[in-house]
Amino acid sequence: MEMNYAKTVEKWGTLEVAVKGPKEGNPFCDQWIKGTFECKNEKKTVDGFYDGDGVYKVRFMPSFVDTYTFKIESSFQTESAEEVSGSFEAVAPSADNHGPVRVAGTYYLAYEDGKPYHCIGTTCYVWNLQNEKLQEQTLKTLEENAFNKIRFCIFPKHYDYNLHEPITYPYEGTPCDTSELNENNFAEYNGCASGNDWDFTRFNPAHFQHIEECIKKLMALGIQADLIVMHPYDRWGFSMMKAEDDDRYWKYVLARFSAYRNVWWSLANEYDLMHEKTLADWERYAAIICEKDPYHHLRSIHNCKAYYDYNLPWVTHCSIQRTETYRSSELVNEWREKYHKPVVLDEICYEGNIQFGWGNISGEEMTRRFWEAFCRGGYPGHGETYLSPDRILWWSHGGVLHGTSPERIKFLAKIMEEIPGLGVEPMPCKWDEVACRAAGFPARKDYFIYYYTFMRPSFRDFYFDDTTEYQVEIIDTWEMTITDGGIHKGQFRVQLPGKEYIAVRIKAVK
Amino acid sequence: MEMNYAKTVEKWGTLEVAVKGPKEGNPFCDQWIKGTFECKNEKKTVDGFYDGDGVYKVRFMPSFVDTYTFKIESSFQTESAEEVSGSFEAVAPSADNHGPVRVAGTYYLAYEDGKPYHCIGTTCYVWNLQNEKLQEQTLKTLEENAFNKIRFCIFPKHYDYNLHEPITYPYEGTPCDTSELNENNFAEYNGCASGNDWDFTRFNPAHFQHIEECIKKLMALGIQADLIVMHPYDRWGFSMMKAEDDDRYWKYVLARFSAYRNVWWSLANEYDLMHEKTLADWERYAAIICEKDPYHHLRSIHNCKAYYDYNLPWVTHCSIQRTETYRSSELVNEWREKYHKPVVLDEICYEGNIQFGWGNISGEEMTRRFWEAFCRGGYPGHGETYLSPDRILWWSHGGVLHGTSPERIKFLAKIMEEIPGLGVEPMPCKWDEVACRAAGFPARKDYFIYYYTFMRPSFRDFYFDDTTEYQVEIIDTWEMTITDGGIHKGQFRVQLPGKEYIAVRIKAVK
Repeated sequence: MEMNYAKTVEKWGTLEVAVKGPKEGNPFCDQWIKGTFECKNEKKTVDGFYDGDGVYKVRFMPSFVDTYTFKIESSFQTESAEEVSGSFEAVAPSADNHGPVRVAGTYYLAYEDGKPYHCIGTTCYVWNLQNEKLQEQTLKTLEENAFNKIRFCIFPKHYDYNLHEPITYPYEGTPCDTSELNENNFAEYNGCASGNDWDFTRFNPAHFQHIEECIKKLMALGIQADLIVMHPYDRWGFSMMKAEDDDRYWKYVLARFSAYRNVWWSLANEYDLMHEKTLADWERYAAIICEKDPYHHLRSIHNCKAYYDYNLPWVTHCSIQRTETYRSSELVNEWREKYHKPVVLDEICYEGNIQFGWGNISGEEMTRRFWEAFCRGGYPGHGETYLSPDRILWWSHGGVLHGTSPERIKFLAKIMEEIPGLGVEPMPCKWDEVACRAAGFPARKDYFIYYYTFMRPSFRDFYFDDTTEYQVEIIDTWEMTITDGGIHKGQFRVQLPGKEYIAVRIKAVK
Repeated sequence: MEMNYAKTVEKWGTLEVAVKGPKEGNPFCDQWIKGTFECKNEKKTVDGFYDGDGVYKVRFMPSFVDTYTFKIESSFQTESAEEVSGSFEAVAPSADNHGPVRVAGTYYLAYEDGKPYHCIGTTCYVWNLQNEKLQEQTLKTLEENAFNKIRFCIFPKHYDYNLHEPITYPYEGTPCDTSELNENNFAEYNGCASGNDWDFTRFNPAHFQHIEECIKKLMALGIQADLIVMHPYDRWGFSMMKAEDDDRYWKYVLARFSAYRNVWWSLANEYDLMHEKTLADWERYAAIICEKDPYHHLRSIHNCKAYYDYNLPWVTHCSIQRTETYRSSELVNEWREKYHKPVVLDEICYEGNIQFGWGNISGEEMTRRFWEAFCRGGYPGHGETYLSPDRILWWSHGGVLHGTSPERIKFLAKIMEEIPGLGVEPMPCKWDEVACRAAGFPARKDYFIYYYTFMRPSFRDFYFDDTTEYQVEIIDTWEMTITDGGIHKGQFRVQLPGKEYIAVRIKAVK
């Protein structure tokens, strides 16, 4: 059996073992392959997958710097155990490799090496399935901005502004005829339009290989790939497959993508709009992830109207779409108390001006929601839906950003990075402020942020104790300025500009 | 007995019968006077009051154009019945006299002559107790603006920015020493500060005479006087009197002010901050009003944190202070459904920049809350708290306005006046709009307003029916422009500017 693999890989890198095998029949269903990887501190058995053209692959992400040995087993194995074994060195990670993101301190996220991860997501649902030029533009935009997580779909998307075909399909087959499809009748195609002819037992490896390239490009940019494995915006029938097809899909996805450290699992976008799926289905998919992803990547599921029960043990963090018109980030405290998990706001509305209510807030309001979420101890997420003559909207297609919030989000990201520790925790506060301090137990008294949201006090009095000296800074979150407010002790008054969107940062002088 | 009164008065005007009587002893407690007024359609007995200097007065507001007869009875009466009787003519009201404001159609307000009353209140708690020049300035500002109701107090106010003495006191006596009073210690004076020496059995008629002048000046401007009879912002002890003193005060107020058609009764501002008063006390005051005000002026009570039970039968309308930071006007629909009475929002925050969370929103946000309240079928109220070197804030003192919302409120007032009928009623709507139509049963299909609040759709599709022609107007509620959007029929699309604060008005073409 011909077997290829690298002899050296970084800790939290991806070791890939490629094996030649049978092409005949339906290798996706007829064959199986798996690998067992072992070093002093860990031993994991992982599924491999058929990658087309007679090639099978098994991928593994080592979690330790050590010498690993492995053996490959498969349904088509004819060689002796020695001939399908190997070893490699997992070496120290490079400077930008901090491992996968984990839950830390109940409400927070951190890389496995301990570096705090201040999650600032964005969403471009099918940027990965647009033309190559547009994909490059998206990556360039990501590089220039502060987003360190992006949500996107494995399946193509059918929706208003999303009528064209994807660059590849996940299965062998042919799509429905769309010569009559237009913006006025697209809802008639929803679900599985007539004329689709797919073989759900035969994946299209090129589709998945391409997504792997996208995951790796994001990894190089330090961006988490929050993979939306299922979604309801469909005309091809991928959202309406039978249970056995769903399960085959999940296992294929897990075998292919799990060994990339920047992968998160989002079971679905707006799961509650997938009316064919039951709660039992979602729980079954979750069980498959828990079984087949030995690295325990972050797992969640994103709602439309009905929140999923984020208290369920498999859910690592909340992945919330706000359900109210007037309150979104403002509810982070409630969600923290209800779920005791990191609160990731994966949709708090889109900055833009489209006809849909979820997609037409201002950059000011988006920025305000970011600060509200941050100061309440949550992780805000961005999205953008500006109408453009080319009908390219960041929300789905990526490309360039037109809004005014991304620049402010970069500014906020710097503020986040300066927090000592994992993040901030909300404090009791006056009604026209959102108050937080650097998280810790017992409560820290050396690092506070007060955010005044749309309210505009002209001054504010503070008192912490009689002896500590505090450095005060006035932050204009919209103008992106930080003004020295002097050093104070005891009871003191801070003059404020009486404008919207002001924050005050107060740090104990060491 | 010397008796003076006018021979002619307008319907809904105030007939005043003045009678000479004893000065000795304590006329406020020792004597009583009342009058019975009668014409073909009504007969009312009303209490009079001692106005000082041996003068007693009985006031009456006729509700019909007719010849009225009356007789006066008193504890000091020595003449025969004929000698204390009289008659007068109630003549047709002048053009600006529409009678008192009444509840109409469950959720709305209208003058007694049927003219819809689109309530747009403001609050200047003790404008009436400032120096004369400032009072004149306040009246001038009111004349130049759209407010048709003002909330103000009978008792003086003690609070931050409200430390100076009033021009008059309601009782005979002397106030506490305030030579040491300042902004940092004013809370120590709260309630009844030591050194106050008041005789709660002896009113100061000059104080009440002045308030009557204020009520009449407001009447001349077409403005309702929403009298706050009790409030907690006190250092003189007026908020902490015994029950018998309270009741005497209530009866005096009712006897003096009831016959002015533009009076509303607000039992208290922030009743729930008057910790000495119980629910039984409030209900007792309400019972006194119901007994002693024969004209049934509008009655309500204003909360701080705890809403009063506006379902109680004596309450004519909700007088709400919002209790949430992020939602105020947005809750009008809930309040309508809960109370089935007019929803008057007497405090939705103040436009300004003071240090208190209730007093520092922008003109944009105030204007937005006005439109939200209006389109949801409620009556929004204004207030302003800009810091000023002279420490004169409209909120308490009146004077001039500094904000940007009053001009927009004038613009909205014109929109309100153009509504056919009593007002608008909320409709089911998409989440990024507040939709309403001219109120009526069965539901009217000829007059709609859609307000997009802070959301910014670039277009919106409408469909009412296939045959009616509709005139569309695009309203920029901030820029105060109305743009012709053409005449449409069937399904149609309206292009919008993709800005915040846009509304669309759609009227059937007759």
